[in-house]
Amino acid sequence: MTTIIAASIHAAIQTKTVEYKQGDTTLEGFVAWDDAIPGARPGVLVVHQWMGLTDYEKQRAEMLAQLGYVAFCADIYGKGIRPKNTAEAGAQAGKYKSDRQLLRARVNAGLDALRQQPLVDVKRVAAIGYCFGGTTVLELARSGADIAGVVSFHGGLDAPDPNDGKNIKCKVLICHGADDPFSSPQDITALENEMRSGGVDWQLVKYGGAVHSFTQPNAGNDNSKGAAYNEKADKRSWAAMKEFFAEIFK
Amino acid sequence: MTTIIAASIHAAIQTKTVEYKQGDTTLEGFVAWDDAIPGARPGVLVVHQWMGLTDYEKQRAEMLAQLGYVAFCADIYGKGIRPKNTAEAGAQAGKYKSDRQLLRARVNAGLDALRQQPLVDVKRVAAIGYCFGGTTVLELARSGADIAGVVSFHGGLDAPDPNDGKNIKCKVLICHGADDPFSSPQDITALENEMRSGGVDWQLVKYGGAVHSFTQPNAGNDNSKGAAYNEKADKRSWAAMKEFFAEIFK
Repeated sequence: MTTIIAASIHAAIQTKTVEYKQGDTTLEGFVAWDDAIPGARPGVLVVHQWMGLTDYEKQRAEMLAQLGYVAFCADIYGKGIRPKNTAEAGAQAGKYKSDRQLLRARVNAGLDALRQQPLVDVKRVAAIGYCFGGTTVLELARSGADIAGVVSFHGGLDAPDPNDGKNIKCKVLICHGADDPFSSPQDITALENEMRSGGVDWQLVKYGGAVHSFTQPNAGNDNSKGAAYNEKADKRSWAAMKEFFAEIFK
Repeated sequence: MTTIIAASIHAAIQTKTVEYKQGDTTLEGFVAWDDAIPGARPGVLVVHQWMGLTDYEKQRAEMLAQLGYVAFCADIYGKGIRPKNTAEAGAQAGKYKSDRQLLRARVNAGLDALRQQPLVDVKRVAAIGYCFGGTTVLELARSGADIAGVVSFHGGLDAPDPNDGKNIKCKVLICHGADDPFSSPQDITALENEMRSGGVDWQLVKYGGAVHSFTQPNAGNDNSKGAAYNEKADKRSWAAMKEFFAEIFK
């Protein structure tokens, strides 16, 4: 494994890129931690949106580091595969959404890489994801990952296999825009039923007035496009995540 | 107005019963506050379940007082009207659920009584309600009450008038058991659409594995009865309320 030192944003927050593997594929993640805090601490995997690993996820990782966690941004697509436009993003996201086993392998590789970070308390690990990454952390849960919890932020919600809930061992928090047009009411109901029949410890929060991408400042503010930033829903969902972590990392 | 000094549970928490009126009807509420805190503070109206004002709501008021609020338990049914069994409770709750104007008058009378409490900062007021009281605080919001927010805990969710959302000025947080059998998916969808079309700032949290009465320890633990205590959902919804108050009482 090769690591490259990148810039640190805050005095205490350290960051670096981290190469790791899934099978023969090289992936390039990113880790952030606060070196002013001594000792092992919980680790949080961060899974990117359909555009691949960008500065957005890295900023979230730094925010998590400021909260005292080791945050590791997974790279699902592979080193150098960073879509330049929505067509490329759609092709990449579609590839993994239609091959959930590959998606699970990729996200679990990221989880392994997180666990290998020296400051991570491997007994206290969770995963969060945005958009495509929300779908991905739900797949991580369905893969039976032995982690404390997952949080989906405006993830694409569906239930490809209604029996998958039975494999979920961790707690699940889903933060969803009530006006998100990219998950149908039927798909959301199917997901709820999957969680219900699987006996999962799950929560779903719907934020009124929020559409897809509500945590993404670059998404603009035009709800009619189906994706837009919503400051209230962004802050509320981040607060909900913090409360969830406070519970699961006790 | 006559007041009677009742017992205080904690050294600093003071409580008393408070008589007040709605029209010609005498109502008997209950107020709790921390007298170790100086000066005006936000006020929270607490609306009772279908059994009427009981020790349960009074305990919640004391918990709110411990958080630094003045908490006032409304009495919707009237002084001395305290159902002894579910048949009586059903008759009382049914009376007000089928006469929403009367219900609004009663809950607004409680809001006025809260505002008259000397330590309340009348610019920072909210209402919470359980079960029947959840329905009631939604009606309080629909009545156009000039308050900061309402929180429903396992309230009966419906939308008798789909246009009512347009009258709502305050923020709305709905904490709901995902397996609560007393609100149909159709009624919940109708409520969501009412909020949506009214441009309301609303949030709905569904707690997996929770049925009706999930905050009520007396409800037992048999989900198959449709009403049962759920400690996780109780704690999570209380935390969500605290976060909501932190936002709206800024």
